[in-house]
Amino acid sequence: MIRKIRRVSKVINKSHDKEFFHQAGTPPGTIIVDENAEQPIIFLIDYNQTDLIHKQISYPEECLNYLDTESVSWVDVQGLGSKDILHRLGQTFDLHPLILEDIVNMVERPKIEDYEEQLVIIAHMVVPNPNNGSFYSEQVSLVLGKYYVLTVQEEPEHDCFDGVRMRIDKNKGIIRRQGSDYLAYSLLDAIIDGFFPVLELYGERIDDLEEEVIVNPSQKTLQKIYQIRRELLQLRRAIWPQRDAINSLIRDGSELISDDVRIYLRDCYDHAVQVMDIVETYRELVAGLMDVYLSAISNKMNEIMKLLTVVSSIFIPLTFIAGVYGMNFNTEKSPHNMPELNWYWGYPLCLGVMALIAMSLIYFFWRRGWLTNSVNFQKDIHR
Amino acid sequence: MIRKIRRVSKVINKSHDKEFFHQAGTPPGTIIVDENAEQPIIFLIDYNQTDLIHKQISYPEECLNYLDTESVSWVDVQGLGSKDILHRLGQTFDLHPLILEDIVNMVERPKIEDYEEQLVIIAHMVVPNPNNGSFYSEQVSLVLGKYYVLTVQEEPEHDCFDGVRMRIDKNKGIIRRQGSDYLAYSLLDAIIDGFFPVLELYGERIDDLEEEVIVNPSQKTLQKIYQIRRELLQLRRAIWPQRDAINSLIRDGSELISDDVRIYLRDCYDHAVQVMDIVETYRELVAGLMDVYLSAISNKMNEIMKLLTVVSSIFIPLTFIAGVYGMNFNTEKSPHNMPELNWYWGYPLCLGVMALIAMSLIYFFWRRGWLTNSVNFQKDIHR
Amino acid sequence: MIRKIRRVSKVINKSHDKEFFHQAGTPPGTIIVDENAEQPIIFLIDYNQTDLIHKQISYPEECLNYLDTESVSWVDVQGLGSKDILHRLGQTFDLHPLILEDIVNMVERPKIEDYEEQLVIIAHMVVPNPNNGSFYSEQVSLVLGKYYVLTVQEEPEHDCFDGVRMRIDKNKGIIRRQGSDYLAYSLLDAIIDGFFPVLELYGERIDDLEEEVIVNPSQKTLQKIYQIRRELLQLRRAIWPQRDAINSLIRDGSELISDDVRIYLRDCYDHAVQVMDIVETYRELVAGLMDVYLSAISNKMNEIMKLLTVVSSIFIPLTFIAGVYGMNFNTEKSPHNMPELNWYWGYPLCLGVMALIAMSLIYFFWRRGWLTNSVNFQKDIHR
Amino acid sequence: MIRKIRRVSKVINKSHDKEFFHQAGTPPGTIIVDENAEQPIIFLIDYNQTDLIHKQISYPEECLNYLDTESVSWVDVQGLGSKDILHRLGQTFDLHPLILEDIVNMVERPKIEDYEEQLVIIAHMVVPNPNNGSFYSEQVSLVLGKYYVLTVQEEPEHDCFDGVRMRIDKNKGIIRRQGSDYLAYSLLDAIIDGFFPVLELYGERIDDLEEEVIVNPSQKTLQKIYQIRRELLQLRRAIWPQRDAINSLIRDGSELISDDVRIYLRDCYDHAVQVMDIVETYRELVAGLMDVYLSAISNKMNEIMKLLTVVSSIFIPLTFIAGVYGMNFNTEKSPHNMPELNWYWGYPLCLGVMALIAMSLIYFFWRRGWLTNSVNFQKDIHR
Amino acid sequence: MIRKIRRVSKVINKSHDKEFFHQAGTPPGTIIVDENAEQPIIFLIDYNQTDLIHKQISYPEECLNYLDTESVSWVDVQGLGSKDILHRLGQTFDLHPLILEDIVNMVERPKIEDYEEQLVIIAHMVVPNPNNGSFYSEQVSLVLGKYYVLTVQEEPEHDCFDGVRMRIDKNKGIIRRQGSDYLAYSLLDAIIDGFFPVLELYGERIDDLEEEVIVNPSQKTLQKIYQIRRELLQLRRAIWPQRDAINSLIRDGSELISDDVRIYLRDCYDHAVQVMDIVETYRELVAGLMDVYLSAISNKMNEIMKLLTVVSSIFIPLTFIAGVYGMNFNTEKSPHNMPELNWYWGYPLCLGVMALIAMSLIYFFWRRGWLTNSVNFQKDIHR
Repeated sequence: MIRKIRRVSKVINKSHDKEFFHQAGTPPGTIIVDENAEQPIIFLIDYNQTDLIHKQISYPEECLNYLDTESVSWVDVQGLGSKDILHRLGQTFDLHPLILEDIVNMVERPKIEDYEEQLVIIAHMVVPNPNNGSFYSEQVSLVLGKYYVLTVQEEPEHDCFDGVRMRIDKNKGIIRRQGSDYLAYSLLDAIIDGFFPVLELYGERIDDLEEEVIVNPSQKTLQKIYQIRRELLQLRRAIWPQRDAINSLIRDGSELISDDVRIYLRDCYDHAVQVMDIVETYRELVAGLMDVYLSAISNKMNEIMKLLTVVSSIFIPLTFIAGVYGMNFNTEKSPHNMPELNWYWGYPLCLGVMALIAMSLIYFFWRRGWLTNSVNFQKDIHR
Repeated sequence: MIRKIRRVSKVINKSHDKEFFHQAGTPPGTIIVDENAEQPIIFLIDYNQTDLIHKQISYPEECLNYLDTESVSWVDVQGLGSKDILHRLGQTFDLHPLILEDIVNMVERPKIEDYEEQLVIIAHMVVPNPNNGSFYSEQVSLVLGKYYVLTVQEEPEHDCFDGVRMRIDKNKGIIRRQGSDYLAYSLLDAIIDGFFPVLELYGERIDDLEEEVIVNPSQKTLQKIYQIRRELLQLRRAIWPQRDAINSLIRDGSELISDDVRIYLRDCYDHAVQVMDIVETYRELVAGLMDVYLSAISNKMNEIMKLLTVVSSIFIPLTFIAGVYGMNFNTEKSPHNMPELNWYWGYPLCLGVMALIAMSLIYFFWRRGWLTNSVNFQKDIHR
Repeated sequence: MIRKIRRVSKVINKSHDKEFFHQAGTPPGTIIVDENAEQPIIFLIDYNQTDLIHKQISYPEECLNYLDTESVSWVDVQGLGSKDILHRLGQTFDLHPLILEDIVNMVERPKIEDYEEQLVIIAHMVVPNPNNGSFYSEQVSLVLGKYYVLTVQEEPEHDCFDGVRMRIDKNKGIIRRQGSDYLAYSLLDAIIDGFFPVLELYGERIDDLEEEVIVNPSQKTLQKIYQIRRELLQLRRAIWPQRDAINSLIRDGSELISDDVRIYLRDCYDHAVQVMDIVETYRELVAGLMDVYLSAISNKMNEIMKLLTVVSSIFIPLTFIAGVYGMNFNTEKSPHNMPELNWYWGYPLCLGVMALIAMSLIYFFWRRGWLTNSVNFQKDIHR
Repeated sequence: MIRKIRRVSKVINKSHDKEFFHQAGTPPGTIIVDENAEQPIIFLIDYNQTDLIHKQISYPEECLNYLDTESVSWVDVQGLGSKDILHRLGQTFDLHPLILEDIVNMVERPKIEDYEEQLVIIAHMVVPNPNNGSFYSEQVSLVLGKYYVLTVQEEPEHDCFDGVRMRIDKNKGIIRRQGSDYLAYSLLDAIIDGFFPVLELYGERIDDLEEEVIVNPSQKTLQKIYQIRRELLQLRRAIWPQRDAINSLIRDGSELISDDVRIYLRDCYDHAVQVMDIVETYRELVAGLMDVYLSAISNKMNEIMKLLTVVSSIFIPLTFIAGVYGMNFNTEKSPHNMPELNWYWGYPLCLGVMALIAMSLIYFFWRRGWLTNSVNFQKDIHR
Repeated sequence: MIRKIRRVSKVINKSHDKEFFHQAGTPPGTIIVDENAEQPIIFLIDYNQTDLIHKQISYPEECLNYLDTESVSWVDVQGLGSKDILHRLGQTFDLHPLILEDIVNMVERPKIEDYEEQLVIIAHMVVPNPNNGSFYSEQVSLVLGKYYVLTVQEEPEHDCFDGVRMRIDKNKGIIRRQGSDYLAYSLLDAIIDGFFPVLELYGERIDDLEEEVIVNPSQKTLQKIYQIRRELLQLRRAIWPQRDAINSLIRDGSELISDDVRIYLRDCYDHAVQVMDIVETYRELVAGLMDVYLSAISNKMNEIMKLLTVVSSIFIPLTFIAGVYGMNFNTEKSPHNMPELNWYWGYPLCLGVMALIAMSLIYFFWRRGWLTNSVNFQKDIHR
């Protein structure tokens, strides 16, 4: 089913190009590897208050010695392109088949599952894409054991864990003095905090859109509004279950998480709520923009119609008068037949009447504010 | 009441053509069989880790010998066209009259009912209909007993259980080593996972619609949007209670389901939540498309009005001037009467004035961006 | 206050014409009888597995002998037009003053109240009105005692209990073998199931409206949409609290209802949920129709404007040209003054130019699809 | 802060004109009296099953003798214009400073607070204003003690307690046989029931609006819709917390309320729910009216545009033809130059062609239903 | 992460101009000080029933002597511009690193956290900005200890604690007789009550907007509606979590808060609910205004179109007639060729026919109410 989920997800995300070929009806827990995916790179960081090992390894088994020692081991797998590595990973860490499926199935909904010996956290990591103001989205799976944390990332490229690595390497803050639960918290916190720069980009885009909607709304504006709406929907889908997951972790507790770290998790939860708050606020702002756009379009239409009406109302009666004096009634046959045509002041009089009519109409429109509006329109729209 | 429910459902589903004739006021538990429905076909699969029986049988009683043995029996009834068979089924499996009514009444809401000895699961199975991008929907009833699973399907045609059958036949995965509860889970999982290919089709249709709404919105687009909206409503009605049912199963537990299988059910629940998530996201996207459609229509109107206004504003004043010089004032009677008509440069001058006016208006419209917009419109709309 | 409630309700229901004159500040429990209401007719059905009495009686007291016997007594009062009968009813069944008020006050919200010795169920019965596709709505009050069920209906005309009566009379199903709680369930079930034929009518009306909105939307369509919306609102008001009431009955239990019947009530609850589901789905469909209607109107406007713009854009420039050659510049005074007028091929050339302009404009509009759209419009709208 | 709350409330209610001048930062429990408010009038009703005292008193202290006797005392204070009286009230009834603040602060949200010895109920009383179909709103505070009820009303004018007073004076119903809790219930019930006549007025206004929206929608209709919407919002704000308050009273209980009265309170709660139901239904109806209004406006526009298009499409081509034959091509210089002008049947032929064109266009428009629509429009709109 | 949160918040608030430069990946609890922020000013108020100390101090340590005495100490820090002061503050009050981060991180969501020895309240204080009818928003952190309250404000300028200071200084009310919990309550109450003057400003702005939308809606009106909507969104984000926080404080209790003060907190909670109520009501009113605006625009369009249609429908047919008599058919060649041109009464007859047509059309439009509407429009719009 993984293939299907991925495809559906593709429609929503429009960012993945991979294709899977796999038979329907596979048993649960089967790992289907996308062989085009990037080959996994594995890093091992093992530390306690005094010592630190930070190296790249080739096979999961190499970290076996570190896992059960009291020092905290962080095994970071980046990339999913090798079935072999994934199987070895499963054996090394003694993972339940469903955990492994969740890790590989990259479009899982964020969740936290407690398998007693292990706590599995499926999260979504977002990284801003400065090119188009959007973001890259990637699934990260965390497996927390007593003395280790295993993280599996979809791709090696983007990552928001640099800060945590630096704090471990440079022994900043209290991280080196704490256990694996604190490390897991730090990683989760980095993931949640990674939403803020993305939101910042959206804030800027919404600001720009507001300007555009008011100054110069066009068909393109509409597409942009729809696009942002779509992407915010996606962001919400990413953060909403993450919040629920953290909440259930705090509420239900777990043997693997100490009370001290639980206080920190509350902080992490607050940030997740804040992200959601901002996403919802942005969604409301964008919905408001849609309304503003629609009525800006209506306003424009009014201006267009006003111009047409003013021009038509002034010239159509005048043209009628000119038409009347263009009729070929024979003035010689009757004194009633348009004698004005032969008057000395006939033509000037006729022009004068026309001017008078035009003037009155212009005054009429000016009184109703149509002319000034039309003139001020350009300015008005630029504030 | 079954007839009524079916009819009401027909309005929503627009796919069933059957008619029932049955008297109001029938006691609960009465089975009303649609005699035009397809004759039931019954399959029996009985297996344990080593042995396997897979055969078609004619009457439910034939499987009596298998039901109470420790090997797992799966009795799969496809089609509802025989009252006799259904009654025998009720006797063979010792079903409560209400269970039997639920099984036959094919538009029941998905639900799970615990009758202590038996667990009844009413679910909706969807199968993609590639002809129109829509889906076939069919009710499936599962009755889980200690050593057996009974499934009753509305029609023999579509089915998403092939994967499960293959896993049993070829002894893939752990299914042959597990009990009837694992079989029930596998079937439920197959049903839920069957939603993904359907959603995939909808994803594609929404993608196409997005293109259409922006490039070439027409009355037909509107109908398509409404149609998708209607079908998503139906999908939501199918998956929403399914999710609730699975959730209540996990929460309340049941003697018939082991703890091991409950972990798998959590996975199944996650998938149901994911389906719902996607359905909701699609619904929001379609609602957004409606807005985009409406403002695309308004935009089009603006373009039309602009063209009319530009043409009218330019030619109406010119026509007026031409009209003036078409008046028949007698130039011989007075020097004031349109002396231009007799001038040497009169006509060129008149044309020149007209050209000047046209030019200024064109410049005016060009400055306000109406002309460029009109020209760019076609391109703009194709992105 | 009853009068007020009725009046308010009238505004919503638009079906009652009765007027009450009663003083404000009456104590709770006072019965105010609408003397224009129909005189009550009382039926008594008393049955056990072997015997059956089914007769019409004149006064409530006549059934006193039957109430405390183990055989089940169903007293069915139809019509509310006699204060005397209602008071006797209260005494015969020993009803709390508030129960009596609830029974008489015919626009109460559906609810279930447990008075230990008696269980009072206030429900709304709907009966389809085939004349206009709408429904009659009537309040039914059920009082369940140990060995009896009392039902009070607003009017003797419509009723959905015929099925239950027939099952008792003909001893069909298990009803004669069960107690009063099963009878109460059967009646409640008949009430809930009575919603389905009404919903069926609405389904048909919505189907017709869909056709109408797409093929030929008019002001009348709008009124129909609003009307259906209004009536669905009313249906929802009737079924929503009914569902809650049944749910609370299942959840909280009552001494008067046996466990066996509770299983049947779950079925009844499922049907109520299904009714609500369908009502909500219909409401969404109607809301969708409103959107479709609005944009169909906009589309129509676009078509109208297109026609106007095409006609104007083609003929206004041509008229201008004709106007130019209608000017009376004196061709004899100057060779510049419209020499074309005296050319041999002048007129054909002029017509040719006009034809060329018209052709180019038609081509321009054809390219933009305005002409084909206009032509296809009629077809398009009929699908 | 009271001043601020009042002002804010004024914006919503638009009915109060009072102004307060009071310093920010006053301690909680401070009483700020609006000295322009009406001077308090105090009534004392003391009754038991046999005796009744009903008199106006000048100072709260006068009722001290009655408060602790077993007979029920109802002290009704109308008007808030005297700080002195309010202070004495506080002392006489031994009120917590916060209670006194709540009583005086007349825009409090409805709520119920349990101070063990006393139960404080802050409610909103509405009285219909038949002049404009709106309502007067007034805060009423009830303090329930063991043997007394204190009510404080904002103004002496409107009041919905007359029914209760009459029942006490004339010894109707059971009120004289019951304790202070029953009196409190009766007053609360009168307040809730007072919403029904107000809702009745709104029902009528909505009915009228429906008529107006369909028959003759204008700018004024829009304002009325907005006005009703605003007032219903206000009604909802009044009844919603009232319902919650009664509910919490029933659920949490209170020493001061006997079980018998609690049954009556359930009835009162039902009425509050009913009021809310109707308010919500009205709100939905009004929202529906807005949609109908908007599309009625669009429909009108369509009719206008149709007329313009019909007139223009028929006459513009004809005018063009007339313009062609008004050109001054010299027929003597060439046989190609409009020979029709000199034909014997030229003019009739020309008129005939024009008539033909007009006819075809009229037929074309008639076929598309534009003419009949235009003609039927007036009728259509009057149904 | 603080920098990011601030930036995101800036987009929403549009009021902060500060910039932070800080590395990603900092450990939790790190304080990042904006060195451009204002230097902290610290006030110490220490009081009991008889004595009072109120002075400005330079360093947090100066108040160490007062913190553990039974007299209540209020330390008020205004401004965040010094990392040193903040660190000393942390040491003096023995604050958990996360508390310190919350205090400094000025865009935290309002919340209440219980650290057993200390209760931390993060709140948002709003102060009306009379210049533009908007408000200044500032975070205030309260730390409640056994004998002290620490408040940290973002800026020294605006503040709503003057009332509390005055009550302490002048010994008004009961504040001097109460403990630190009552002080904390008083401050929280002052913060909540500070929302009312802000809401009052919004009430006035909405009133003005209502007037504007009906009398003279323009593009600018739209921007104002959007602006208010945006600011109300922000207000809601400030008050919503504040309410939740107070509620959880009342519900969960805390050792530091006495039962007496809890009663006062209920009052504070009521006010928060009231603020939220008003914000929601305003939001609904503004949403209603948007609808009114949109239909006012549509109404305007209708008026414009009516004028155009009236003018065109009257003059286009007349111009056609004039055009017919302007054709140059040779009257001498045939008696059928426009003999009217040579009639004695030809021209008057022609004018008469034109006048008749014009009159009928005017009558037709007058009957449909288009003319009166057009004339009344101006008045109508001013009510």
